[in-house]
Amino acid sequence: MPWYQLEDANDPRLDELAKQYNLHPLHIEDARTADESVKVDTGAHYTFAVFKPVHLEPDPDEPSESAPVFTPIDIFAGKDFLITIANPHSTSTTEALERARRDGDDEHPSKLLYLILDTIVDLYFPAIDHFDDRIDDLEDTVLTNPSPEILQRIFTIKRELIDLRRVLVNTRDASLHLQRDPGSIIDADHQPYVRDIYDHVARLLDSVETQRDLLNNTLDIYLSSVANRTNEVMKVLTILGTIALPALAISGIYGMNLKGLPFQDSPHGAEYIAFFTILCTILLLYLLRRMKWF
Amino acid sequence: MPWYQLEDANDPRLDELAKQYNLHPLHIEDARTADESVKVDTGAHYTFAVFKPVHLEPDPDEPSESAPVFTPIDIFAGKDFLITIANPHSTSTTEALERARRDGDDEHPSKLLYLILDTIVDLYFPAIDHFDDRIDDLEDTVLTNPSPEILQRIFTIKRELIDLRRVLVNTRDASLHLQRDPGSIIDADHQPYVRDIYDHVARLLDSVETQRDLLNNTLDIYLSSVANRTNEVMKVLTILGTIALPALAISGIYGMNLKGLPFQDSPHGAEYIAFFTILCTILLLYLLRRMKWF
Amino acid sequence: MPWYQLEDANDPRLDELAKQYNLHPLHIEDARTADESVKVDTGAHYTFAVFKPVHLEPDPDEPSESAPVFTPIDIFAGKDFLITIANPHSTSTTEALERARRDGDDEHPSKLLYLILDTIVDLYFPAIDHFDDRIDDLEDTVLTNPSPEILQRIFTIKRELIDLRRVLVNTRDASLHLQRDPGSIIDADHQPYVRDIYDHVARLLDSVETQRDLLNNTLDIYLSSVANRTNEVMKVLTILGTIALPALAISGIYGMNLKGLPFQDSPHGAEYIAFFTILCTILLLYLLRRMKWF
Amino acid sequence: MPWYQLEDANDPRLDELAKQYNLHPLHIEDARTADESVKVDTGAHYTFAVFKPVHLEPDPDEPSESAPVFTPIDIFAGKDFLITIANPHSTSTTEALERARRDGDDEHPSKLLYLILDTIVDLYFPAIDHFDDRIDDLEDTVLTNPSPEILQRIFTIKRELIDLRRVLVNTRDASLHLQRDPGSIIDADHQPYVRDIYDHVARLLDSVETQRDLLNNTLDIYLSSVANRTNEVMKVLTILGTIALPALAISGIYGMNLKGLPFQDSPHGAEYIAFFTILCTILLLYLLRRMKWF
Amino acid sequence: MPWYQLEDANDPRLDELAKQYNLHPLHIEDARTADESVKVDTGAHYTFAVFKPVHLEPDPDEPSESAPVFTPIDIFAGKDFLITIANPHSTSTTEALERARRDGDDEHPSKLLYLILDTIVDLYFPAIDHFDDRIDDLEDTVLTNPSPEILQRIFTIKRELIDLRRVLVNTRDASLHLQRDPGSIIDADHQPYVRDIYDHVARLLDSVETQRDLLNNTLDIYLSSVANRTNEVMKVLTILGTIALPALAISGIYGMNLKGLPFQDSPHGAEYIAFFTILCTILLLYLLRRMKWF
Repeated sequence: MPWYQLEDANDPRLDELAKQYNLHPLHIEDARTADESVKVDTGAHYTFAVFKPVHLEPDPDEPSESAPVFTPIDIFAGKDFLITIANPHSTSTTEALERARRDGDDEHPSKLLYLILDTIVDLYFPAIDHFDDRIDDLEDTVLTNPSPEILQRIFTIKRELIDLRRVLVNTRDASLHLQRDPGSIIDADHQPYVRDIYDHVARLLDSVETQRDLLNNTLDIYLSSVANRTNEVMKVLTILGTIALPALAISGIYGMNLKGLPFQDSPHGAEYIAFFTILCTILLLYLLRRMKWF
Repeated sequence: MPWYQLEDANDPRLDELAKQYNLHPLHIEDARTADESVKVDTGAHYTFAVFKPVHLEPDPDEPSESAPVFTPIDIFAGKDFLITIANPHSTSTTEALERARRDGDDEHPSKLLYLILDTIVDLYFPAIDHFDDRIDDLEDTVLTNPSPEILQRIFTIKRELIDLRRVLVNTRDASLHLQRDPGSIIDADHQPYVRDIYDHVARLLDSVETQRDLLNNTLDIYLSSVANRTNEVMKVLTILGTIALPALAISGIYGMNLKGLPFQDSPHGAEYIAFFTILCTILLLYLLRRMKWF
Repeated sequence: MPWYQLEDANDPRLDELAKQYNLHPLHIEDARTADESVKVDTGAHYTFAVFKPVHLEPDPDEPSESAPVFTPIDIFAGKDFLITIANPHSTSTTEALERARRDGDDEHPSKLLYLILDTIVDLYFPAIDHFDDRIDDLEDTVLTNPSPEILQRIFTIKRELIDLRRVLVNTRDASLHLQRDPGSIIDADHQPYVRDIYDHVARLLDSVETQRDLLNNTLDIYLSSVANRTNEVMKVLTILGTIALPALAISGIYGMNLKGLPFQDSPHGAEYIAFFTILCTILLLYLLRRMKWF
Repeated sequence: MPWYQLEDANDPRLDELAKQYNLHPLHIEDARTADESVKVDTGAHYTFAVFKPVHLEPDPDEPSESAPVFTPIDIFAGKDFLITIANPHSTSTTEALERARRDGDDEHPSKLLYLILDTIVDLYFPAIDHFDDRIDDLEDTVLTNPSPEILQRIFTIKRELIDLRRVLVNTRDASLHLQRDPGSIIDADHQPYVRDIYDHVARLLDSVETQRDLLNNTLDIYLSSVANRTNEVMKVLTILGTIALPALAISGIYGMNLKGLPFQDSPHGAEYIAFFTILCTILLLYLLRRMKWF
Repeated sequence: MPWYQLEDANDPRLDELAKQYNLHPLHIEDARTADESVKVDTGAHYTFAVFKPVHLEPDPDEPSESAPVFTPIDIFAGKDFLITIANPHSTSTTEALERARRDGDDEHPSKLLYLILDTIVDLYFPAIDHFDDRIDDLEDTVLTNPSPEILQRIFTIKRELIDLRRVLVNTRDASLHLQRDPGSIIDADHQPYVRDIYDHVARLLDSVETQRDLLNNTLDIYLSSVANRTNEVMKVLTILGTIALPALAISGIYGMNLKGLPFQDSPHGAEYIAFFTILCTILLLYLLRRMKWF
């Protein structure tokens, strides 16, 4: 069975193959579109599939943060031929094709299609785990040191989860299509395997939903911690004011050019007044403490 | 009827049984996966089921808080054999199997499957009750003493509820499958019992939804209490300022090196001024009180 | 036609009746469960129904607040017998049975079942009206006097609405079951009446949804009023500061032990300075007023 | 064809008509209920419909604000008779019947039913437009002058939109019923017209959804403007404090009864110190400005 | 095949064509309505379609901001005629018709209908891209310089996205109708092309949903930045108070007319006290720094 492994959808060999195997022009156009989405389309005599395996690419600025990168892989699986189009420089597409390559050309195209899809779905698990790690990390940081850039990291992860979720939803629909479609290329024997893939993708989607919930929790913690900090600042300000108040009021009173103030002429006046001022301050602080302020 | 009670999915006896009873390799793989999810899969000549009974494990740091722990139990129920795989050190799986064990080997596998599922669903009720207690406790605490760690407890419970909800949703789907599937192992006589289990799980899910609502209320109360406290702090600051103002302003005025201030030369000047200052302070406090400030 | 009116599901007579009329053990178990939920279950030769009529019980602490209380009523309606189980000390179940009792034993059980359900649904209307009154009352209070205990009342009502909603949803499903089920005990002539009950319950559910919306509005008003009050407090603080500022600054300046201050030696210095201080204060207040502060 | 135009559902003539045309007692009861909801019910030999045309009634306190008022209209449309019950003092029901009246008695009842429904749906458009105007007005006000009573207006409109939405949803379902019901009184020729009505109501519902979205935006703007104002107040307070600080601190220093202060004995001391104080204030204000505070 | 290209729905030629080709009066009325919505309606012998191509119109006040403008285009596609009604002064409708015009009159009307719809859907992509740019721009601005007018821009975009979303949802439904309707004008050969259009619109709708999510994120960032700024202002106020406190308290103390203050009579008293004051201030600032305040 011939297996054509193209590296670029714009390769003129694709046009020849399209003529030879009577591929639908819309599928060729799809394969050549930059931003194609995951899908499976069952034609009269072959199945066209687009998948998007993922790999993690470390952020050049922050090596501990990796962003998921999707590289499309196009597959035309007929009864007696297989055409795959994938960028050979992407680790994810290479890995996706390798297992199928090991099984070689003697397998049926539908088996190869299944093997490729299975490997691709397995690649999503480490990506999800990386999101779990990042969110755990965020949760720890937001509790110990909430700062505005946390917000930016939350929204970066949110954006990536939106993308990942869309790819997974489409992959789930694609595997459902392979399962349910009456003209599906997958025969009855391999249906349980495709159903198994479907279950895996459904579980991945569950995890993504949980991660979205957890991210929203992190956002709530952040916002409430800002409110809490304002509260703390206000308290410090009020305690400062409380400490200063007796000193200012009493020293103001004894600064008046009036007669008849107590201890005004006593040689130890300053000491008596200092003692009285400190007493007032302690009393006020004690009152605040009883009101459970600090 | 033989009942094989394995304690570990990696037991090589499972491979022998798989050969003997022609078990599907995907089911064996599922049973050996660490993080399998609840499901029922009806094969040609047997039914494969994964359930997740729950038990509460006290938090080592805080003994009053228990977290729900799920331990998987795998069941292969054929017409004339039953294979169960469960960790014997978990109280929940042990309890789930015990009732079926009491009824012994002379029962039909489908009856045993039903008994196990019924016991497992009964185990969820105390877990839900424990959540109820914890949320009631949270609500009391958030009203009397709102502190930032409340937030962390809210989100811990939220996370556990997300997990519990997913297990319950899958258990509900599994019991629906046992009920609706045309090839279901459960015969017509026992269908009402499975429907009863379905109703119980649906009721549990209802409770989980209510608990999520109540948790969100607790969060709202917490956030509004933070806003309220800021408000209170501001009021105390303002009242302090109000008390200090007359003393500071009047003592400032009499501290000026100017001539012509009233009572400047009176021997009882200090007393008059003190009286006037106290009067101003009382007047200001009265005004604030009339504006319903304290 | 015999009508057995039991007062307690644990009455041993129920066991005799179960034997006599061949009642399903699951239904007996359901009737004896403390927290059973509303449902209709059509068996082979009779219909089992659980309803939950409501009555309002005044709060002992606050007589103007009544909480809805649900008392279950169990009904076994066969072709030639009727069994009802209801606590005779509850006003709601008593009222629900009274109308059916008036029509007496000569009616068909299905007619009695319909009459009981109809009366029960009518009992929900005053409960909903009471919620309307309480929410209107809350809305008035939250605008005139927002205080933290409002929050608690909002969440109490929310919780009660969650319970009421669940009972209504189940009652709606039960009446749909009585309408749609091919083996329904209700004959074609009475179907329009059951459809009418269904419409009433649907309308009640609409009202509950509206009330939940209105409660959320009340919560928003409360939270924004807290923010507004903080705002007001801040303004008063700032205005106080504004009034104090000129007095403090000018009196401070004239308190300096320096030479060359204007009017320092004038016999009317104090008057000039007082006039100047008041002028500055008025100017500042005027500026704040122009910035639309009070 | 006889057309009975009743003005009150309690008119005893309705009982006579009910007997004559064999109207279902539930329909009569519905017509006599105060708070009936929009519906279409196809009986054996006639169709019973309740619609709720709307008209705008100006608020007596604020003439620019009009609230939507719904007046029910009941219709019994048989093959050879038409009964309408509508309050003749309401402008909306009068308008709804007028067009049908112009076409006169020689039309088929189903045509008249269609004409009435069409007019009623047309009456919703100006109501929706009025909501648009009020929301636009709110948006302008909330940006220029956010005040707490805005909140009350937002929630009044929200409440009215909830009511309007419910009427529209029921009207949409009623027109769907007229379209889909196999026993519908509307014949195939007029089906496109009913579908057209359905499209109009769907469009109205779309608008209501958009208006709810816009109202929520207005609420967000209001809440954020409160937070912004608190912010502004805080800034003014801080700027006031900044202006006062140098004057207070320096005048305090020169008020000390100490020796060795610079310029203490200079005849132009006050001038030097005043200059220095103003310099400090300007410097502080400049620093705040550089931090983009005002 | 005749192709009538009208420029205005009120053109009397439309009435002639309606008579000639037996067009339904409701369709004519629809075409003449100002605010018609996107739809496809399959009649007995022709298909009536309304589409709404979009073009971007720069905001006269702010040239970098363009708002999407929708211009309706009405199409009557029969087996042997085509009528299009479109404003010739709109760039979008002109572009939508141009490609079909190039293919000329010799094509089948259904092919022309497809070509027009395809071009219209292609026109939505740059509009979506422009939204992407504006939201990216907003996100940058909200982080560097959050100001209240950001809020207004967020809500303007929200409003436009609501409109765009509604047009897209209707366009998706219209293309689904062209695909599924048994009497569809599109033949089997062209069905894959219509399905392709459907996929494109679904992808556009996905993007709009993502953009709504991102806008909500921007709103959250804005609101939290307001809270953060209040926090910052409070901190500056507290730091100012901290700096002022020692100077005010100590100078107040030495302003008292008392005897017995240390260094009162020392010739270098001022210097000692100045040194002590500065020491206190530095100590307080150091404490604040250790509490991680700045």
